[in-house]
Amino acid sequence: MTIQEKIARLREIMEREGLDAYIVSGTDPHNSEYLPEAWQQREWISGFTGSFGTVVITKDDAGLWTDTRYFIQAEKQLAGTEISLHKLRVPGAVDYPEWLSNTLQAGCRVGMDSFCMSVRDVEHLKEVLTVKNIELVGKPDLLGEIWLDRPGLPISSVYLLEERYAGESVQNKIATIQAKLQKCQADYFLFSCLDEIAWLFNIRCHDIAYNPVAINYAVVGREKSYFFIKCSKLPVEVISSLESNQVEIRDYHHLFLFFDELEKSSHFLADLHTLNYAVYNHLASNFKVTDIESPIILNKAIKNQVELEGFRKACIKDGVAMTRFFFWLEQELVCRPISETEAAEKLSELRANCPDYVSDSFHTISAYGKNAALPHYSAVPGKDVVLKNKGLYLVDSGGQYLYGTTDITRTIPLGELTQQEKEDYTLVLKGMISLARCVFPKGTTGANIDIVARQPLWNKMMNYGHGTGHGVGHFLCVHEGPQDIRQTWRAQAILPGMVTSDEPGMYREGQHGIRHENLIVCQEAGKNEFGEWCNFETITLCYFDVSGMLIDLLSEDDKKWLNRYHAQVFDKLAPYLTEPEKVWLQKKTSKI
Amino acid sequence: MTIQEKIARLREIMEREGLDAYIVSGTDPHNSEYLPEAWQQREWISGFTGSFGTVVITKDDAGLWTDTRYFIQAEKQLAGTEISLHKLRVPGAVDYPEWLSNTLQAGCRVGMDSFCMSVRDVEHLKEVLTVKNIELVGKPDLLGEIWLDRPGLPISSVYLLEERYAGESVQNKIATIQAKLQKCQADYFLFSCLDEIAWLFNIRCHDIAYNPVAINYAVVGREKSYFFIKCSKLPVEVISSLESNQVEIRDYHHLFLFFDELEKSSHFLADLHTLNYAVYNHLASNFKVTDIESPIILNKAIKNQVELEGFRKACIKDGVAMTRFFFWLEQELVCRPISETEAAEKLSELRANCPDYVSDSFHTISAYGKNAALPHYSAVPGKDVVLKNKGLYLVDSGGQYLYGTTDITRTIPLGELTQQEKEDYTLVLKGMISLARCVFPKGTTGANIDIVARQPLWNKMMNYGHGTGHGVGHFLCVHEGPQDIRQTWRAQAILPGMVTSDEPGMYREGQHGIRHENLIVCQEAGKNEFGEWCNFETITLCYFDVSGMLIDLLSEDDKKWLNRYHAQVFDKLAPYLTEPEKVWLQKKTSKI
Repeated sequence: MTIQEKIARLREIMEREGLDAYIVSGTDPHNSEYLPEAWQQREWISGFTGSFGTVVITKDDAGLWTDTRYFIQAEKQLAGTEISLHKLRVPGAVDYPEWLSNTLQAGCRVGMDSFCMSVRDVEHLKEVLTVKNIELVGKPDLLGEIWLDRPGLPISSVYLLEERYAGESVQNKIATIQAKLQKCQADYFLFSCLDEIAWLFNIRCHDIAYNPVAINYAVVGREKSYFFIKCSKLPVEVISSLESNQVEIRDYHHLFLFFDELEKSSHFLADLHTLNYAVYNHLASNFKVTDIESPIILNKAIKNQVELEGFRKACIKDGVAMTRFFFWLEQELVCRPISETEAAEKLSELRANCPDYVSDSFHTISAYGKNAALPHYSAVPGKDVVLKNKGLYLVDSGGQYLYGTTDITRTIPLGELTQQEKEDYTLVLKGMISLARCVFPKGTTGANIDIVARQPLWNKMMNYGHGTGHGVGHFLCVHEGPQDIRQTWRAQAILPGMVTSDEPGMYREGQHGIRHENLIVCQEAGKNEFGEWCNFETITLCYFDVSGMLIDLLSEDDKKWLNRYHAQVFDKLAPYLTEPEKVWLQKKTSKI
Repeated sequence: MTIQEKIARLREIMEREGLDAYIVSGTDPHNSEYLPEAWQQREWISGFTGSFGTVVITKDDAGLWTDTRYFIQAEKQLAGTEISLHKLRVPGAVDYPEWLSNTLQAGCRVGMDSFCMSVRDVEHLKEVLTVKNIELVGKPDLLGEIWLDRPGLPISSVYLLEERYAGESVQNKIATIQAKLQKCQADYFLFSCLDEIAWLFNIRCHDIAYNPVAINYAVVGREKSYFFIKCSKLPVEVISSLESNQVEIRDYHHLFLFFDELEKSSHFLADLHTLNYAVYNHLASNFKVTDIESPIILNKAIKNQVELEGFRKACIKDGVAMTRFFFWLEQELVCRPISETEAAEKLSELRANCPDYVSDSFHTISAYGKNAALPHYSAVPGKDVVLKNKGLYLVDSGGQYLYGTTDITRTIPLGELTQQEKEDYTLVLKGMISLARCVFPKGTTGANIDIVARQPLWNKMMNYGHGTGHGVGHFLCVHEGPQDIRQTWRAQAILPGMVTSDEPGMYREGQHGIRHENLIVCQEAGKNEFGEWCNFETITLCYFDVSGMLIDLLSEDDKKWLNRYHAQVFDKLAPYLTEPEKVWLQKKTSKI
């Protein structure tokens, strides 16, 4: 079916259901960033593959709402369809709730899949539409009857993450939630975010690409917990381990049946920022529901000592793969051309040599020359370019290991660089180093320190259009809250134990793109009359190519940091390298 | 009357009025920071003179709520009274609304002067008390009958600020408000903040110490405006100038009478963050009221070219006074001891030599040695200390000139310094210089750039407990919103035309205090593919004493900035100095 045919079929169903508009959101019932195919409804109906966007179809109009990151991509992917692009985060932008309110008449009915919309989003939508007397109607799975080859929900097996990796028992984690229930005089805490439940039950699964999570819900009660999942996905040892922690297993689709069993006086806690509207609506019509931030979010973000040791180990394994990759690339490029996709595949292969490697942590960005200047470049075999012996090559990649998740970007010179390329390379590096060296009082937020990575660029009136850092999960999602490092405000302080990326960049359209990225761990730095202090430990281990730098632009402190970092990279990786690799890395990490 | 007697009398009146508690707030009907004596009710009933605090009296309890800045001062000033100190902004702090709710029984009645409470504060109070079924009762001026020697409202004359100083006509300013009325389909905009009205009508007055404003309200209608003020304060030329701008003059106390004249269908705009509850309550029971941020706040903060020229001129006059002051101090101290208060008086006297000087812009902080380490030190004649030929002397002061307001802090060595003093002195200076040199994209907030001034200290795990910068009015209040530069979030960007202070500090209890403060003006710095850029122009003109610095701690860029700054200080001030002063300043500003 073409996009046009799909839209035409949807309109027939809308007609039958008495709907004047239908919203196809870009998320799933678990507020996921990466979706299993079965829930890629927005992609199916529109062809748009970005990670953020909403499609609205009316009787005679169709639109996609997305933000600056995806304008070019969306224009390409929507070309030839009747779907028009509505740009968000630009002056005068009108989001789809307001657009619906402006476009539809009073009395109209708007349908949505209430499982794939968060409570917050629906509340806002309702607020905007009610004023115009437009009705919002939950119609789960409306696309089901026209999406004939729709894949089923994934059925990967669940496995236990041993406590020697997780560092905290399931019993302990559940007890923390139960203490919260006690404190709030509530009976149940409902969890719907996949990584939160994976963390809570020390389980992993591969229902979704790159994110080792399972499709499930969980409810923690005062004495017992409930795990809603397709039961065939659970091997015996997982079942018995869960049961030993008073976790009862129910079918994924029996969540509402479970609710029916409960006393009407039950009091639920749930995080309405992430809970889907369908479940919330059912809960709220039957029980008392209190909106509360999921305590798992912060507990999960503050890594324990075992998790941090795992991260450090993962960074060694990852550093070895990265070193081998660049060694291979340098030698190979002398003899033959290598494409962006071949390079990316080689890197995955090298990561996979580690027995504890599970998968990549996201789709590798392997971008040569001007391709690296595109914010979300994804090399497609056949359509990608070949690496040459000049200019810059950017590779942003990461691995999932049983003991941690990595995310690293290096930009390396493949030969001669222009002065401009070298200057940009060095300024970005200065920003990355400055943030890595930052000392700050406890309580400082990401918005307070973001500038530290940007200032070398700002001083030359240059900037990058993305955040400087995101939280990273422990063998979980590579993007994880609640902290981040960016200009926009988030009240969450950067606290000891949090793992965050440090990744400034510089992009010149049509020319080159540069990003340097390490993972940094916030740690206690001491206490004195002025308060409690934190700083960062850099855990990523991979050299920065000195031939790309204008050494004069580095301060003495920058050089000291770089020399110490390079010494550490060599010391920690050398034991795992072959002799030629070792000699090569020694040269790459020699003192400046 | 002693504090005890006052409280006893108040309790008799509370008994008569059937009140179980009475709130005495620390502000006035105009949400002012500095109050005329007649509204210093909180000080009168408690003896506490801080700028922030609320007193609550119940039948058998009395408390003062204030924050960290005033703990030491409040403990001293409350000693010997029955009023206990409730600390705010500390872990576990309970503010007075919650305290009242915890302390009082259901059915109790709490009184307040609703003229001296903002709508926002009352709304919060109501929310907290209603849950406990406690009634909140407006009882304006309850202290009136016991405060027998209460001063009347001030009666200073109002005068016009000529357009050659203001840079924009009253007609224009009113037209902007009228455009807003039109846009919001409203009839009237009510203004209650004194500096907003002074700005709107290009008038100044001296009803309040340091702030050149009058006690008044203003209403802008679609065609006419109304100015509520004690009429005897207005000279003929002010009346005729206002009338020529369609401003009708009414008595200050006739605001409610005016409301009675209006059609019931009238639609008011007002800023409920600052409007007092009594006026709001009357308005809202008679008309439609829409809460909207006062457009004057941002218009006033973004100075026009004439105002900026005035600021620059004021900084020259101020720099001359500061230079003469330090010249005098250095010579005088050789011969005789000088007290903190004598120094402060001399400085005011030198400022007053300028014919366009109107008053100081706040109470001068003149603090020697360890006194400078106290956050809000105020030297009291007789109880102050004498300056000696060693250590550091801090002076934070400013002037009101017809063309601008100044605020400057210098900390100068009076002789030998310890290594510690020099290091602190230099690190604070580095922070101040870094912020002054900051380049940033348009849209950047104060919370984003605050760290720039703190980093030299943070790197050594030192910090200061106040904000880095506050907005400054144009011949208006020395503290002015909406922008500031501090760690806590304010969504307001630092925009071209805004005047802000740049004043990092370092305070070692019992030893010394250091603060360096210049005024900086945000300006356009250019536009390129990465966006629009801003930076700062430093307008304050006064040398920094090089003998206090550890030159090695300064970067090349710091030195370059300092040399350029000192050259400018000399060039701009020299024409106004005597020959000996000039020679002296040349030495003080010589290249490092």
